[in-house]
Parts: sequence; C-alpha cells; structure tokens
Amino acid sequence: MTVTTLPNTDASTGETSAPGSMGAQIADLGRRAKAASRVLANAPTSQKNDALRASAALLVARTDEVLAANAADVAAAESEGVSATVIDRLRLNADRVASMAAGLRQVADLPDPVGEVLDGWVRPNGLRITRVRVPLGVVAIIYENRPNVTSDAAGLCLKSGNAAFLRGSSGAIRSNIVIASILREAIASVGLPADSVILVEDVSREAAVEFMRQRAYVDCLIPRGGPSLIRSILDNATVPYVIDGDGNCHVYVDAEADLAMAVAIIVNAKTQRPSVCNAAETLLVHASVAEAFLPLAAKALEGVELIADPLAAALLPGATPADEAAWSTEFLDLRLAVKIVSGLDEAIDHIATYGSGHSEAIVTRSLATADRFTAEVDAAAVLVNASTRFVDGEEFGFGAEIGISTQKLHARGPMGLRELTCVKFIVRGDGQTRG
Amino acid sequence: MTVTTLPNTDASTGETSAPGSMGAQIADLGRRAKAASRVLANAPTSQKNDALRASAALLVARTDEVLAANAADVAAAESEGVSATVIDRLRLNADRVASMAAGLRQVADLPDPVGEVLDGWVRPNGLRITRVRVPLGVVAIIYENRPNVTSDAAGLCLKSGNAAFLRGSSGAIRSNIVIASILREAIASVGLPADSVILVEDVSREAAVEFMRQRAYVDCLIPRGGPSLIRSILDNATVPYVIDGDGNCHVYVDAEADLAMAVAIIVNAKTQRPSVCNAAETLLVHASVAEAFLPLAAKALEGVELIADPLAAALLPGATPADEAAWSTEFLDLRLAVKIVSGLDEAIDHIATYGSGHSEAIVTRSLATADRFTAEVDAAAVLVNASTRFVDGEEFGFGAEIGISTQKLHARGPMGLRELTCVKFIVRGDGQTRG
Repeated sequence: MTVTTLPNTDASTGETSAPGSMGAQIADLGRRAKAASRVLANAPTSQKNDALRASAALLVARTDEVLAANAADVAAAESEGVSATVIDRLRLNADRVASMAAGLRQVADLPDPVGEVLDGWVRPNGLRITRVRVPLGVVAIIYENRPNVTSDAAGLCLKSGNAAFLRGSSGAIRSNIVIASILREAIASVGLPADSVILVEDVSREAAVEFMRQRAYVDCLIPRGGPSLIRSILDNATVPYVIDGDGNCHVYVDAEADLAMAVAIIVNAKTQRPSVCNAAETLLVHASVAEAFLPLAAKALEGVELIADPLAAALLPGATPADEAAWSTEFLDLRLAVKIVSGLDEAIDHIATYGSGHSEAIVTRSLATADRFTAEVDAAAVLVNASTRFVDGEEFGFGAEIGISTQKLHARGPMGLRELTCVKFIVRGDGQTRG
Repeated sequence: MTVTTLPNTDASTGETSAPGSMGAQIADLGRRAKAASRVLANAPTSQKNDALRASAALLVARTDEVLAANAADVAAAESEGVSATVIDRLRLNADRVASMAAGLRQVADLPDPVGEVLDGWVRPNGLRITRVRVPLGVVAIIYENRPNVTSDAAGLCLKSGNAAFLRGSSGAIRSNIVIASILREAIASVGLPADSVILVEDVSREAAVEFMRQRAYVDCLIPRGGPSLIRSILDNATVPYVIDGDGNCHVYVDAEADLAMAVAIIVNAKTQRPSVCNAAETLLVHASVAEAFLPLAAKALEGVELIADPLAAALLPGATPADEAAWSTEFLDLRLAVKIVSGLDEAIDHIATYGSGHSEAIVTRSLATADRFTAEVDAAAVLVNASTRFVDGEEFGFGAEIGISTQKLHARGPMGLRELTCVKFIVRGDGQTRG
C-alpha cells in the first residue's frame, strides 16, 4: 500500500498539524476545516460540481490503491476475529468504488441549496429583510467502519458548501486515509481548499471525545453509528448535533383496512430489507379484523419469527410469546412483534409509548381514521397505505441523504442537502436607527 | 402570601409528583409535561387563545398575590446582598404584571404556526408527500431570576402547541410558583391540561442538571441566562438544545459610507440600550475615512468609553488603549472598542475572528461592498445601513420572541413561534411497497 499524499497536509502550503497534544492537534484540524469552510461558503456551484466530478474520476483512476488499503483493513479485521457482517460492510471491491464515484457524480447533478431565498418582507420602518439559505460551515461526521461514508459524506458536505470534518473508525482507517487523500487532491485540482475534507487519523477513543468538543470550529455533528456511539455523543459532545437514531417502526392494520393491501405492506415493511431503520418491528392489528388478517399475514410472512401477545398468539400457531421488551426492541432481523389492539386509541397510545419517532404506518380505508392517525402520531414520518420502507432521502426525492433524524430540532426525517444548511437574515436599510 | 394551588398538582386528578428521589420526581414532571403535550399538539387555535386570554385575566385579577410573593423574593434577595441590577430584574409591580398579561394577549393575537403545510410533492410511484409544521412537544426553559419569563415562555409554548417545562432560579421561586399556579388554573379553566405548564420547584443545582437530562420527555431546551448557565448546558445536557448566546456585534464603516448615517447608526447601536445582546461592541473604520469620521463619532458618543487600537487612538484623544481582550469582550455597557482597518477584507477577517455570529452591520453606499459583506460575514443577521439593535423578534415582525439563537442548528437569529415547531412528513399512498 502506498499513500502518496498525507490527507491532512495541504499540498499548497505544506502545512501540517501543529505540534503538541492530541487535543491541540484535533483543534488545529478543526481550525483548518473552518478556514476552508469560509472559502466553500461562497464557492460557485459549478466549481463545487467540478470538485465532485474530479473526485469521482480520481477515485476510479486510483481504485487499485483504494483496494490495497482496504485489503489491509480487511486482513486486520479478520485477524482480530471481527464478524462477517462487519467485514462485509468494510470490504470494498472495484464495483463498490465505482458506486462511490457514481454517488459523487449524482450529488453533482443535484440542485445547489445555497443561496435560496426562503422568504422576505418589508417592515413598516422600511427595513427589507430576507432569509437566505447558507451552509452550516463545518459539518463533523463520526462513523463506523463503512469506508464509503468517507466519500458519501464528503460529497454531500461539499455540494452544500460545508467543510467535512471526518472521524471514521479504526477498522477502516487505511481505506479512509486513501479515500480522503484522493478527495483532497481532486478538490484542490479545481482550486478549492484541500482542507474542504479533513480526516482525523487518530482513532483513539480520546480523540473521538475531543472531536465532539470542537465547539469553536464545528457547526454540526452527525453521528452515523449504533447506540454506544449515540451514548458517547450525549455524554461528551459540546458541539451541536443531530441524532440519526433508532427506528422502532409500526404498521397498524385498522378495522377498515384492505387486508390484501395490509399483507403486502407488512411483508414489504418487514422483509424487503430487515436490517435498516425504516423496516417495521411491530404489527398492530385491530381486534375486529385480527381473525381474518393474522392467518393471511402469517402465511405471507413465512420465515419471519412472530413474537405475539396472548390474543394474537391464539391466532398464530407457533408464535413466540411476547414479553414487555418485545415492544421496544428494534430487531433489525426477520422477527416481528405482533399485538392485537382494541382500536385506534390503543394503537396510537402503543406507538406513543414504544415508538422511536421514526416512521409509523396505518392501513385503512377510513378518511377519519387516517386523519386522526396522521395528526396524533408523533413521528418524523407518518404513512397511510404505504410501506415504512419509503422513508429515506432517495425515496422522498432528495437525491441523496446524510442520515435520518429522529430528533425534532433542525432536521426531522431524511436529511438531504437542504438539511446541511442553515439560514442567515439579511437586513437592508437606508440609515434606520431604533427609537 | 397565600398560595392556593400547588402548581404541580393537577386539580382534576389530585395527582402529585411520585414519591422517590429528586431524579424520579423530575422525570415524573417531565412525563406529565409530555402527556399534556399530546393534547396540546392537536388543540384548536381558538382553545389555545382562550387559555392565553384567561391566563392574562387571572394574572391581573391576582396581581396582589403575585406581588406579595415577589416582595418576599425581593426581601430575601436584599438580605442576601444581591446587586441592585439583579433586584431590578426580579422586582414586579402592578404595571409589570399588567405588561405580562398584555404579552399573553399579544401572543393570542398572533397567527398559529401549527398545521402550516411547508411543501408537498408527488413521487413517480404515486406517493403524495407533505411536510407540515407540528409542535416540538415539550419545550424546557431554564432561566435566571426574571419572573416575567415564566409567563412569557409559557405563553409562547402554549400558542405553538408545546407543553412548557420550566425551571427558574431560586431567587424568583416564590414569584414563579404563584405565576405558574395562576397559568395552570387558567389553562385548566378552558379545558386544556393544567400540566401544559409545569414548574420545577426544586431550585438545587442537582435538579437543574437532572432537568437537562430528561431526554425521554424534553424535545428542546432553551436556556435564558449567562455564560455559566450555557457552560452547564454544554457539560450536562443530553436533551437537544438551542443556545441563546452572546452578541459581540460590530459596525463597520466603509470607505464609501455616508458618515452622518454612520454616526447615527453607531450611536444607536451602542447607546440606545447597551445592556442587550444586539448592542454594538466594536466599531471598525476604513482607514481612508477614519480621520474624517472618528472625531465626529467621538463627539456623538460622548459618555461612551472608547477603547482604541493605536491608529484609532491617535485620532481619539482620551481613548483607552485596546488590548487583545477588547476585541472579544461583550461589554454590555457604555464602552466601545474601536479599530481602524485597511479595508473590507480586514473587517471581514476581524469579524470572523472575534464575532459571536449574532448581528453584524456595514455602513456603505457601495453595492459591491454591501454584497460582499452580506455574503461573506457569517452571522445570524447581517445588516446594511441599519442599526444592529433591530435584530430581535419584535423588530423583525415575529410578534414575540423566546430568544435569539447564535447557533446554526434548528434556529438562527430571533426565535418566534415558528422556531418552537418542527416538521412531520405525511406520506399518503394506495398500497405502495418498495421494490
């Protein structure tokens, strides 16, 4: 493996991290990202697109180098006895590199959110106020061992005018270093700052904590990872962050559901890709249709372990009895909790108690029931007669997504380019002073 | 002083805080706020307005009770030797209570942000997606000893469909208990949950920390206070929060400024109300107009201590020499740092280095200079030929404000009712499943 460019060295200046403590070094990387963000904030769309396309081309051209670094990461993971699932996420091949490049080109083709005027008005004193969309500045991403996140996140940040400040996991560090180095070289080749993408190479836990505390430089932190990473953010971060959290998603089959449609939706929501956050985890069924519906559903869900409350279990031979934990578990697997409810109120209460605020679906023909469900269920997305699997940036038409927010501040639901921006008020007057 | 209703007791159920630890008690209050928020989220605008007007009427009717509790707070503060400024913020009189009531009526007159459809579109597969404005849920406010914040914050939360979970300071606890009790009684009188307003009566530091960690119940925390409160939030909070931070605001007088206008703007920005966050703290002057402008400005700023860099000091007899700290200090007083800059680039760099991202103004006749300043200065509000003092919710036409955000996530700049909401995606289909 040959790394020809140190990703944190700016070729134009030869500047490297300041000497000193780990904390000082990470702060210095943050400072450099902030400086780059000032240039990016006003970079023309065409130049940002050129940088994305140059990055795509260079990634493809240097596929062998990426794969060599990745093979070393995979070999290290295998020697450490890491699970096959994790190694599958880590492993790249020429197709996956090509797909990373295609992702960058796709982002280049999306509209630039920066500069959009959201609204504007004139005050009685003549002040003209506009609210315009501007980049956040420095977007920090902390992620686990999928090396494609390095280019995906960097591409979305770049297009939205933000510097990407990245901290991947130790397991993918060799891959990440090479990918970041390629992106930096490509970005610099079109005249934008190489520091538009900065990867923290220190993979210690202490460095991760320090990374979460760069309040002087980081405008937004987005974690891409599991519960232990989220816990660490809650406990340690002082920078503003958006949590991409769990999806404990429900499908509620109402008394007035089209049962064939309900079967198709629960099968899709549970089985089309069970390992993702918008897959369904609990099926709620109105008591009046349970007897008709559950045997149909069970047949269509063959191969899925059903974990049922006593009423449902009576209609589902072979079901596992549900305990309290079943209702709050995100199985991410071919397992589905099933509960019979007395009606809409109980369904809504159950979702309020156990749901994670991600995606909740109802199947019904009743307008009044659909309206109550959409109004009263508190989640990022509420679906009527459609699979929860549609709740993502691509399916919503955002073109790409950096994550799915399950918090309510700033962004809720799928986050595309628009969610990587903030607003600025511009106030124009002709000498107004306040009386 | 007679307190007839315990504010954390729901008259309809007689429910009180669960027994147990302080942590369990605060969590129980959070749980109750969350339950109330589910009702509020779908309460009709007219009922919320009725609650606001009933609260205003009851506050006025029970002015004597409020003033008696407040007098006890003031007496305690005086016996503890608290400063006159702090006591002035704490002290209520009949006019101030009337003004709190007027504030509630004014919020009742504002448009309801809930239910606004922000946008919507149809996907190629026929899914119809709308993005609608919904309440955040439970908004927690932690604040210092201005008892009017209790009714101001509760009113804004109520109108925007949120439960208000309040934790004021020990110095105002007697006043806050009575005010919260009055609001709860008035809200319950129109059929909304008394728990729409919940005041934490435990004023210990431990309770404040616990309050910041109610992630199961709190959707957004807004601190209203000084640097030590903000520090505590950064160190302890696990709930999402919006920081209402410092304002180190600049006025830059460009080479092409109308100097008379520039004098009027800096005088207004510095002296009209020096103690607030949108007051100017540093005057930057283009070298080419410094000799003409600074003596005019100094004369108009009589009574303001000028703290000048060496070049400016040469034109300002009697100025205090500036040290490095002068540029980053939010004086909140009749003191103004003054610096001569070589041009727009140095002005923008100075603001990028020392500014707090609140409000930044330029005085210029040049369109190109104004455009560069508004594009390149990174702040919540950038003003051209107008005083920084205009950056607040009232002056922007929001009708009321809960604070001014200096962070970029969720809300930036003045926060009105709209900033107390989030969005929900509603997706309607006719049986779509994902392929």
